[in-house]
Amino acid sequence: MSTTPATSIWETPMRRALELAARGPAVDPNPRVGCVLLDAAGHTLGEGFHRGAGTPHAEVAALADAARRAGGGEAALAEAGAHRLPAGTTAVVTLEPCNHTGRTGPCAEALLEAGVARVVIAQTDPTPLAAGGAERLRSAGVELLTGLLADEAEQLNPWFTQSARLGRPVVTLKLASTLDGRVAAADGTSQWITGPAARLDVHRQRATAGAIVVGTGTALADDPQLTVRLPEDDPARALLRVPAPAADDASGSATLRQPLRVVVGTRELPASARLRDDAAETLLLPTHDPAEVLATLAGRGIHHVWLEGGPTLAAAFLRAGLVDRLVHHLAPALLGAGAGMVSDLGIGTIAEIDRWQLQEVARLGDDLRLTLTPGPAGPHTPTPSGEDA
Amino acid sequence: MSTTPATSIWETPMRRALELAARGPAVDPNPRVGCVLLDAAGHTLGEGFHRGAGTPHAEVAALADAARRAGGGEAALAEAGAHRLPAGTTAVVTLEPCNHTGRTGPCAEALLEAGVARVVIAQTDPTPLAAGGAERLRSAGVELLTGLLADEAEQLNPWFTQSARLGRPVVTLKLASTLDGRVAAADGTSQWITGPAARLDVHRQRATAGAIVVGTGTALADDPQLTVRLPEDDPARALLRVPAPAADDASGSATLRQPLRVVVGTRELPASARLRDDAAETLLLPTHDPAEVLATLAGRGIHHVWLEGGPTLAAAFLRAGLVDRLVHHLAPALLGAGAGMVSDLGIGTIAEIDRWQLQEVARLGDDLRLTLTPGPAGPHTPTPSGEDA
Ligand SMILES: NC(=O)c1ccc[n+]([C@@H]2O[C@H](COP(=O)([O-])OP(=O)(O)OC[C@H]3O[C@@H](n4cnc5c(N)ncnc54)[C@H](OP(=O)(O)O)[C@@H]3O)[C@@H](O)[C@H]2O)c1
Ligand SMILES: NC(=O)c1ccc[n+]([C@@H]2O[C@H](COP(=O)([O-])OP(=O)(O)OC[C@H]3O[C@@H](n4cnc5c(N)ncnc54)[C@H](OP(=O)(O)O)[C@@H]3O)[C@@H](O)[C@H]2O)c1
Repeated sequence: MSTTPATSIWETPMRRALELAARGPAVDPNPRVGCVLLDAAGHTLGEGFHRGAGTPHAEVAALADAARRAGGGEAALAEAGAHRLPAGTTAVVTLEPCNHTGRTGPCAEALLEAGVARVVIAQTDPTPLAAGGAERLRSAGVELLTGLLADEAEQLNPWFTQSARLGRPVVTLKLASTLDGRVAAADGTSQWITGPAARLDVHRQRATAGAIVVGTGTALADDPQLTVRLPEDDPARALLRVPAPAADDASGSATLRQPLRVVVGTRELPASARLRDDAAETLLLPTHDPAEVLATLAGRGIHHVWLEGGPTLAAAFLRAGLVDRLVHHLAPALLGAGAGMVSDLGIGTIAEIDRWQLQEVARLGDDLRLTLTPGPAGPHTPTPSGEDA
Repeated sequence: MSTTPATSIWETPMRRALELAARGPAVDPNPRVGCVLLDAAGHTLGEGFHRGAGTPHAEVAALADAARRAGGGEAALAEAGAHRLPAGTTAVVTLEPCNHTGRTGPCAEALLEAGVARVVIAQTDPTPLAAGGAERLRSAGVELLTGLLADEAEQLNPWFTQSARLGRPVVTLKLASTLDGRVAAADGTSQWITGPAARLDVHRQRATAGAIVVGTGTALADDPQLTVRLPEDDPARALLRVPAPAADDASGSATLRQPLRVVVGTRELPASARLRDDAAETLLLPTHDPAEVLATLAGRGIHHVWLEGGPTLAAAFLRAGLVDRLVHHLAPALLGAGAGMVSDLGIGTIAEIDRWQLQEVARLGDDLRLTLTPGPAGPHTPTPSGEDA
């Protein structure tokens, strides 16, 4: 394998492949992938992208498109893999072709069967299971170029990529509090600490996730619906779009998904709970083990979990070291009393302080949004004697 | 009185007067004031500025300078007020000349005696006691122009100006906490939650104040020194500079002041307390009444109070509505347990939430500094039914 410089002649078709990939569903068990097939003179033979779990992979969709363009008719389409491409054909694909048999056959085999001479890959597959496609192609004598526009390709599937590296879903913990870390007043009332812009942001961020998770405490106290509710014209609605599994162009119809709703804990939800409505699927997980929750969600093809609390469940994930990102909505207000934002973290002394790294600070109306990732542990070192600030 | 447009011919001498004023001490019972005397042709007759409490006011210093320049010698200097200025002289002064007899006689009278024909004023005096100088001059037939570069003049003495309007010192409450509003870990340890940049910022901000205030709880628990300790080359050291009370130019020697240290509460400090050292004066105020604390400090000519806590005293000032500004150093860290940043504020339910308005967000190393002023009270209004974020 050689790494292709960014000024490669393959950059233009790779950009096209990225464009195609972006038509796929942004949140899905499978990553978004695009593929362009070019003959030896650089003319496009076929194009394809992945429309989501249960539909053909991008490479197979591109092979089918090539068969159709070559005039093979319905019969050839049904057996797209059987269509032979002209000698010297290049496949330009945003993600390393898979080498395993999932709901579809391995794409590396399909490309080999179709007679592809060269494969240009942006991102190599971070999933241990799916990887190996590039090696399979290379050992079969196919010329291989990898890494072209790899960053752009990663950006198409950030949660898929990070989750593949972690071996579990990425967890974002959402917190909302006053300056003094309160999530409710002394009498338990909490609506609303943050303003409308922060609450809209929550719906937008929920849309990036495969699952929205709360503990039974929050489910019982607040009776939340935990769906994504966005204005018709909100750009974040694109994150909910699942294109129809049709073979023709993506401009057609699409459905809107809702993230899976997950309640962690042993207590029952009343029959009247909003979480029992049919606005989205709800999963009840009668466990206290955050790792078990994540294993279950990984098994459902979920890459990004949006954890909305409450304080007990948040603390359980933090103590287990299973929070990858904090999104803290900070209201410029004081309460002086009331429930705290996270329960006991088992930290007894300042040396054990749980440090985070500020990645971004944004204003949301009157409120602030802090985005943080785990930082180096421990307190700051003392400065020269007698310092008191 | 007429308001002078910003393009006035008096703008250049007023800028010179502002420049002179800035040589005075930035934090002092008295405001910084500069004065320039010009003959009818626009030539400078004399210049002066105020060097701090107990030294001549800017107008008197400028009259003395004019007498010296006119060759009056020591005798004339001793009686500067007796020196007659040429007909048609204009006095350009950054603050309305005072009309009361404090440690020095009223400046309005001194200008009248010296035969000034016109007075150009930037800021009118916001102090009820000192005001009236402009009216005195006008009624004596002097031509008066006010408001020229008034904003610049206010900026020279922001605490003086705001405190004069409030009728008490301006109070800045400094808070430092984790994201979850903790100021110490479960075992009481707290050094260090914030990093070196935030701690340096505290010393810089202490330098803007006439007094640094804590409760006995903090004094006893932390044994703080509560002095301003800044590197030799730190620009904020200028805030501590008190020019020598000499009549000649300001390039000469200066001493460094320390803010007054104030401890509020009835408990005694041990003889060994750092607050009993001679690094600065310490005032012990055996009261629980924030208004009484401020009245005492106002009586000492203090315009800006830097309140460093702890949680009990902070809450007492907040409940009394006597905090004008919050400076919150926020460390991107979690503790999950430990003392909270402010004690009970008497807020029972969300409708009584104490809202603040974010004025500035700054990064200080790994930490954030939020600067806030009092905001409109109450919770945010609900959004359409079933919203849960
Ligand atoms: N402002 C905000 O951002 C925000 C967000 C969410 C919630 N809240 C507030 O938080 C309050 C609810 O607090 P909460 O702490 O009870 O809610 P919670 O964390 O949602 O639920 C706690 C429950 O989760 C279960 N659980 C799961 N894993 C656990 C573990 N490892 N250890 C212990 N328990 C585990 C237990 O339920 P079982 O006993 O059923 O097993 C436990 O009682 C509500 O008032 C809500 O309004 C505020
Ligand atoms: N991280 C930070 O920003 C920060 C800053 C400062 C302090 N702290 C921490 O705070 C802790 C001390 O907390 P604290 O609340 O005891 O300190 P505090 O607020 O400094 O002192 C409390 C004491 O102030 C007196 N007081 C004055 N006015 C009062 C009023 N209106 N009501 C009640 N008491 C009044 C009382 O003393 P008498 O009983 O003597 O009358 C009271 O016990 C220390 O551990 C310190 O490290 C943290």
